[in-house]
Amino acid sequence: MAKKDQWRLGIAGLGTVGAGLLNLVAERPAFAPAGGAAVVTGVSARSRSRPRPADISNLPWFDDPVALAASPDNDIFVELIGGSDGPAKAAVEIALRAGKPVVTANKALLAEHGAELAVLAEENGAPLLFEAAVMGGTPAVKMLREAMVGDEVAAVAGILNGTCNYILTEMEASGRSFAEVLGEAQRLGYAEADPTMDVGGFDAAHKITLLAALAFGCAPTYAAAEIEGIERIELLDIRLARDLGYRIKLVASAVRSVEGVLVGVHPALAPLEHPLARAGGPLNALFIEGRRIGRIFIQGPGAGAGPTAAAVAADIADVMTGASRPVFQAPARTLKPFTARGAGTSMQRAYVRLLVRDEPGVIAAVSETLAEAGVSIDSFLQKPVQDAGGVPIVLTTHASPEPVLAEAVRRMAALPALIQPPRMIRIAQI
Amino acid sequence: MAKKDQWRLGIAGLGTVGAGLLNLVAERPAFAPAGGAAVVTGVSARSRSRPRPADISNLPWFDDPVALAASPDNDIFVELIGGSDGPAKAAVEIALRAGKPVVTANKALLAEHGAELAVLAEENGAPLLFEAAVMGGTPAVKMLREAMVGDEVAAVAGILNGTCNYILTEMEASGRSFAEVLGEAQRLGYAEADPTMDVGGFDAAHKITLLAALAFGCAPTYAAAEIEGIERIELLDIRLARDLGYRIKLVASAVRSVEGVLVGVHPALAPLEHPLARAGGPLNALFIEGRRIGRIFIQGPGAGAGPTAAAVAADIADVMTGASRPVFQAPARTLKPFTARGAGTSMQRAYVRLLVRDEPGVIAAVSETLAEAGVSIDSFLQKPVQDAGGVPIVLTTHASPEPVLAEAVRRMAALPALIQPPRMIRIAQI
Repeated sequence: MAKKDQWRLGIAGLGTVGAGLLNLVAERPAFAPAGGAAVVTGVSARSRSRPRPADISNLPWFDDPVALAASPDNDIFVELIGGSDGPAKAAVEIALRAGKPVVTANKALLAEHGAELAVLAEENGAPLLFEAAVMGGTPAVKMLREAMVGDEVAAVAGILNGTCNYILTEMEASGRSFAEVLGEAQRLGYAEADPTMDVGGFDAAHKITLLAALAFGCAPTYAAAEIEGIERIELLDIRLARDLGYRIKLVASAVRSVEGVLVGVHPALAPLEHPLARAGGPLNALFIEGRRIGRIFIQGPGAGAGPTAAAVAADIADVMTGASRPVFQAPARTLKPFTARGAGTSMQRAYVRLLVRDEPGVIAAVSETLAEAGVSIDSFLQKPVQDAGGVPIVLTTHASPEPVLAEAVRRMAALPALIQPPRMIRIAQI
Repeated sequence: MAKKDQWRLGIAGLGTVGAGLLNLVAERPAFAPAGGAAVVTGVSARSRSRPRPADISNLPWFDDPVALAASPDNDIFVELIGGSDGPAKAAVEIALRAGKPVVTANKALLAEHGAELAVLAEENGAPLLFEAAVMGGTPAVKMLREAMVGDEVAAVAGILNGTCNYILTEMEASGRSFAEVLGEAQRLGYAEADPTMDVGGFDAAHKITLLAALAFGCAPTYAAAEIEGIERIELLDIRLARDLGYRIKLVASAVRSVEGVLVGVHPALAPLEHPLARAGGPLNALFIEGRRIGRIFIQGPGAGAGPTAAAVAADIADVMTGASRPVFQAPARTLKPFTARGAGTSMQRAYVRLLVRDEPGVIAAVSETLAEAGVSIDSFLQKPVQDAGGVPIVLTTHASPEPVLAEAVRRMAALPALIQPPRMIRIAQI
């Protein structure tokens, strides 16, 4: 991009992040060190009149975000609409086809259509930047896209959804159930009315898909991610895990293995002393493991108007530097998809919790079943009878192939003393 | 910079980092996503024949690094010589005057002469990049230079010298003195034969000077940094601090206050649960506090051939993107120096340790002295008699102006029961 004294922004989507960006630009239009003041020359949102914490009365209004993206009156199109398809996608495509730089916070759009959008961006010489899509103001995207290029990344793992992390932290702290804490989070506005994207793990899966694409130079392949949410996490398991020295977190991970790039989101037990276990509340946290650099850990707020707007502004400043690089580490047409995560040969340690009737021989039956399946036990804990309607037995296994673990759980489910199906949760490999 | 298919590197300085970079480029010449393979077209070092872990027999040799920097046979000059003056400075100046991009790991050079070099770089349109100068492969420079530009940084604080962190960690773990652990570190090659730069806090001061310049858009002003090393840290204080729930770390910090930008390196007590206290051994760790973004924490290896070479490579890749930005957040000619840190009005909490004769009335005398000086006590601990040749009394204070604390220590030093002067260590404000 040629250098300019003034960069005209078209901003589509005026929710909390969009309003935060308007305020940031109004307060400090010359925020970008590369020179060139930012000025907003067009905005678009679903409702012009809806009350919002930023004044838009003097800004040119566009009913249609696609028209805003196509308008020659802005130099950079900022997409904060959200959603993997619909107007967000149409608007981003129009802007890129016109060779206009796009800055977006839209993880769903890029995780699901990033490969084709990257082709459009590169063929038209338009940057497509998305720092705000992952970890809010914490620059995970920049780290993987730029700081690790001298290294080969082996693995990326972390906590990428603040809502889930808040819920899990609150369950442990307050002793309330998932449903109770979720209900409170919804009343306080920390969780959406339909919380599925967050608690189902889909939001974290979008984010880890983008980080994996940057880490391994792949096409973002959301469909290949294995996704499990936190809806089935019970307070009982949070407490028993703690007794064993662990905390349950929703861990998003991407590793390069002999099978290819494997991406997943799962509840997992992290040792209490581990930085991921210690990242509580709405914090996000990420480990990046490089062959040369070793382990880098980064932690910060994963959402919020201020941090996310600052991340969008950092991308706008990057556009102003004139930097030119591929969207995902290698030319878009050369990107390969992730490997679908099958029931492969990955080794996994697991926490298994059973609720059994208090009768003789149960422990022997459980341990025999595991031995027959070929799973060896690392630790075993039987707690005194609780209110849970049975006796909880909890064990952790040594590393076993995933299909072997699954078979062991299937066999345990058939034991007559069981009151409910066994609950297996991974132990994080971090 | 115009895009190129091939980028020719001139590398001056072939110690561990230089050799690491040669191996990285040999293994993966096309590491940079922006396209363009790297090829080494000239090297320079003090000795051509010295054994090193990289083969230089086929590389064009320059006896004089300044001649290498001036040579039209390379497009990017990589300065890994070290030292704030001498050949490193001369070579960097020649390269910049020729408009040639410079990538360096030299914190002393930039902390002491960064402002004038930034003028040279910007007037000649040459990037001057220095990711490897701070925290090795952990991208602290990139975070402050690029990711925080949409925010206003309020403070930066962290552990920036791995040698000091290793020594403090080992003292606590092994119960050995500073001198013993330093001697072992020197034998193992973890500390230099002359360890002054590290243990005296000067290396950390160079690094925090650079981070402060980036965080606050100032000229790096090494001379304004207040510097205290770890040479006087005694095992007794490490143990007593721990009894009080703290760990002693060498903390480098830079804050923007009403007095201006204050930069310092001091031993300081961090709460045991704090991420800085938990960063042990040779790890580096950094907090960045932004007005909008909140607190970001980053941790990783601070040195080593692999990580540092990867950081140099990331800067080389940045040059290839064609990005153009000021060296230190604002045009070099507009940069203001830091405020010299005087005995201002900064508030400080402190740990004070006394070694007294075991006689009646000592505690009363100590607490009266503090009260008279206007310092209020937060906690007080008297340990049973040890081998230390007296009774240790340790206390922590509430926040007091620095001059008031200093006066209190002066008064306590005059108490007749004291066996040695009081030892005051800051409590980290993190």
